[in-house]
Amino acid sequence: MTQLEQARQGIITPRMQEVACKESLDVEYIRHGLETGTIVIPANMNHPHAEARGVGKGLSTKVNANIGTSSDFIDLDTELNKLDIAIQSGADAAMDLSTGGDLPHIRRTILQRSTIPIGSVPIYQAGVQALKNHDAVVKMTEDELFDAIYDHCRDGIDFITVHCGVTQRVISLLKQQKRITDIVSRGGAFLMGWMLYHLRENPLYEHFDRLLDIAREFDVTLSLGDGLRPGCGADATDRAQVEELVTLGELVQRSREAGVQVMVEGPGHVPLKQIEANILMQKRLCQEAPFYVLGPLVTDIAAGYDHITSAIGGAIAGAAGADFLCYVTPSEHLSLPNVEDVKQGVMASRIAAHAADVAKGVAGASERDRKMSIARKKLDWETQAKLALDPEKVRQVHEQHHTSGKACSMCGDFCAMQLVSQHLDIDMHKC
Amino acid sequence: MTQLEQARQGIITPRMQEVACKESLDVEYIRHGLETGTIVIPANMNHPHAEARGVGKGLSTKVNANIGTSSDFIDLDTELNKLDIAIQSGADAAMDLSTGGDLPHIRRTILQRSTIPIGSVPIYQAGVQALKNHDAVVKMTEDELFDAIYDHCRDGIDFITVHCGVTQRVISLLKQQKRITDIVSRGGAFLMGWMLYHLRENPLYEHFDRLLDIAREFDVTLSLGDGLRPGCGADATDRAQVEELVTLGELVQRSREAGVQVMVEGPGHVPLKQIEANILMQKRLCQEAPFYVLGPLVTDIAAGYDHITSAIGGAIAGAAGADFLCYVTPSEHLSLPNVEDVKQGVMASRIAAHAADVAKGVAGASERDRKMSIARKKLDWETQAKLALDPEKVRQVHEQHHTSGKACSMCGDFCAMQLVSQHLDIDMHKC
Repeated sequence: MTQLEQARQGIITPRMQEVACKESLDVEYIRHGLETGTIVIPANMNHPHAEARGVGKGLSTKVNANIGTSSDFIDLDTELNKLDIAIQSGADAAMDLSTGGDLPHIRRTILQRSTIPIGSVPIYQAGVQALKNHDAVVKMTEDELFDAIYDHCRDGIDFITVHCGVTQRVISLLKQQKRITDIVSRGGAFLMGWMLYHLRENPLYEHFDRLLDIAREFDVTLSLGDGLRPGCGADATDRAQVEELVTLGELVQRSREAGVQVMVEGPGHVPLKQIEANILMQKRLCQEAPFYVLGPLVTDIAAGYDHITSAIGGAIAGAAGADFLCYVTPSEHLSLPNVEDVKQGVMASRIAAHAADVAKGVAGASERDRKMSIARKKLDWETQAKLALDPEKVRQVHEQHHTSGKACSMCGDFCAMQLVSQHLDIDMHKC
Repeated sequence: MTQLEQARQGIITPRMQEVACKESLDVEYIRHGLETGTIVIPANMNHPHAEARGVGKGLSTKVNANIGTSSDFIDLDTELNKLDIAIQSGADAAMDLSTGGDLPHIRRTILQRSTIPIGSVPIYQAGVQALKNHDAVVKMTEDELFDAIYDHCRDGIDFITVHCGVTQRVISLLKQQKRITDIVSRGGAFLMGWMLYHLRENPLYEHFDRLLDIAREFDVTLSLGDGLRPGCGADATDRAQVEELVTLGELVQRSREAGVQVMVEGPGHVPLKQIEANILMQKRLCQEAPFYVLGPLVTDIAAGYDHITSAIGGAIAGAAGADFLCYVTPSEHLSLPNVEDVKQGVMASRIAAHAADVAKGVAGASERDRKMSIARKKLDWETQAKLALDPEKVRQVHEQHHTSGKACSMCGDFCAMQLVSQHLDIDMHKC
C-alpha cells in the first residue's frame, strides 16, 4: 500500500512518524495531510535508506538540488560530489537530471549513495535512447517511454516529473498566443516534438492510468511537470501555462482517487507582482496539492546570479504557500553547474525557504531567528555560527580581519550594540 | 539656490536635464518631482564632477554601496578599490562610513575620485574625535557635532545621514517596549548615549534649523536616519521605530519648507510579510519623500549570505515603492567587507532594484528583459552577455565547460528551446 492508502485507513507509518518528528508536529496532522493530499512523503519502497521528507501544507518549505550529467559533460564522480555537497548544505531532496553517459548506472549509483529522496525525469532516458536507437528523440515509442518510467520507479526513484499536461489543446494555445521562449522544459519539449511529429495526443495524458499503476506499485510520488512553464517574464501566466495547470488539477484528483501521492510543478520566470496570483491559482485549481516551484525568477537579465533572482521569487512564492523550492544555481542559463555552484544554489534556496517559513509561521522558524538575534546582541560569535544556515562560512568571514575587541571588524570600537548596552544599563540602574 | 528652490521657481537645471536623460523621462516630470519633494538629486555644489542621480517616484530604483575604514582596519587604498569596483559594478552612490584613520583626508580623497554621489554620516567623525579628545564619544559638544556636519558639507558630500528622530520620547518607548537588539545604528547609538549622559534632547532635533542652514548652503540632501531601525525581525515595526518615523515625517515637511532636499531612511531587519506595510507607512507619514532602505533583511540566520537576504527584502520593498536600496554585503554582521564583497553586494542589490523596476513599471525595465529573452531563445550568447547585469560573469560561466553545439553545456544536445524551434517551425510550415 502507498502512504496515501495507508493514511486513508488510519494507519500511521514509520515514514509519517519520521516526518512528524522532524517538523515537531503531531503525527495525526501528517496522516491527515496525506489523506487529504495536502502533504506528500516522496519515499519509494525500493529506496529504504533515504530519510523521509514531508512536503506540503503546514510543513517547513523544502529545497531540491538538481544534479546530473549532460551530453557535453559526463563525469559520475563530479555528480556524486554535487550530491554530497547538496546534502551537506541542507538540501531536502535532489533530482538526477542526467542526459549523458550510462543513465541507469548513474541513477542507481546516486540512489545507492543518497540519504535524501531522489527525483528524476524518466522521459530524458527514453529520449536519449530514442536518439541513439532511432536517430531522433521524437521516434521514441509509447512503450519505450513507459518502460523508462518503470525502470526509474523500480530502481527506487522517490518522485518522478511527468509532463502529463502538455496536451494538443495546450500546443494550439501556445501557437495562437505566441511566446518569446516557447517551451523551456526539456521533458515538455520532447513531448511536444513527439506530438507534432506523430499528430497524436500526449501518451502520458492519454494513458494516465498506466502511469498511476506504475507509481502505485512502488509508492512513487508523481510530480506533475509544467512543460509550459514560462522561460521569461514576458511569457508568464499566459493561456498555455494556465490551461496546462487546469489539466494538472484534474490529474491531481485522479491520482488521489487511485491512491497515488501527487504534487504539482510550477514556474519558472515570473515577474514579482504575478507570483502570489500564480500560487493562489495552483492551490485552487489543484485542490491544495503541494506546489513545487522552480525559482520563480523575478527578472531575466541576471544570468550568472540567478540563484539570487530565484531566492527573491522563491521567498515570495513560499510565503504565499509554495511548499517545495527547486534551487537555481549561478550557472543557470549558461552552463552545467559545478560543485561550488551547487552549494551556492542550495544556500540561496534555503534562505528563501526560511524567510518563507518565518512569514508562514512554520513551527520554530521565528524562534531560531530570535535565538540568533540574542546571540548577536551578546556578541557571542560561536552561538551565532551554530545557529546560522552555514556555520563554517560565518566563522571564516568573521575571522577575515583582525579584531581588537569583542565586536566585529565592521564597527570595531564603535559597535552600536555594545555602546547602547553600556548606556542603557547605566541608565536603567539610575532609575 | 538648491535644486528644490530652483524647481519651485520653474528653473530647469543641468542636473535635472542629466537625470531626465538617464531615466528617459521628460525633464518637466523631474522638475515637478523635485518641487513636490517626491524626487531628490543629491548633488553638492562642491562635488561638481559627480554624475547626477535622481532618487524617487517614477525613477529607476537606485543602489548605494557602503565603504570606509573601521578602527580595526585602516587602509585607504583598499577603500578606494572598493569605490572603484562599486562604480564599475553599477552602484548609483556610495557612502563613506569611515571611523578609522584620518577621516577628513579619507573623505576628501574619496570625493575627489568618485564619479557618483557620495554620502556620509558626519556624527561618526564627531564621535571618533570626542573619543580622542575627551576620552568618550558621549562627551562631544553640540558645536563639535555641527562643526563635523559643516566640514562634510563644505567638502562636497552629496547626502548626509542625520539621526534627527532619536528623541527622548523614542528612547522612553524603547525602554518600555524592550527589544532584543536595542539600537543597531551607530549614529543612533552615539546620540542615544549622548542624550542619556547629558539628560538632554537630541541636538539634531532641537536645532534642526541650524542643520537646514548648513544643508541649504551647499545643496546637501538630508537623509533622515533611522536610529531605531530594527536589528532583528523580532524588533521590527515596534513603537520606537514608528514613533521615530512620525517625527521624520514632520522633519520632511520642515526641510521642504526650508528649500532643503530630503529623503528618509528605513529598516533594516523586517520579516517578509511586514515589508509592504513599512513602505506604505513611510510614504504616508513622510508625504511621499524618497525612501532609502537598508535591506530589508527577511531573516536573521543567514550571516555570510546577507546580500541574498537583503536582495529578497529589497526587491519586495522596491516593488512596494522604496526608491533607494542600500546594499548589504556577504560580510554584514561579521566583518568589514573586502573588495569582492562589495561587488557581490552591489550585484545583489541591482538584481533587487531591477526586479522592483519591472514590478513598478519603470520605463525600459521590462523591455531589457524582453530583449534578453529574445537573445536567449536565439542562443545568441554575446547579446545575452551584453544585456546582462554582469557581462563578464556571463561570458566566464558560459565558457566553464566545453560545449559541442550552439546550446550551453547544461542541456547540450537536448536544449528545449532548440528542439522546440525545429518542431514548431516545421509544424507552422505544414499549416
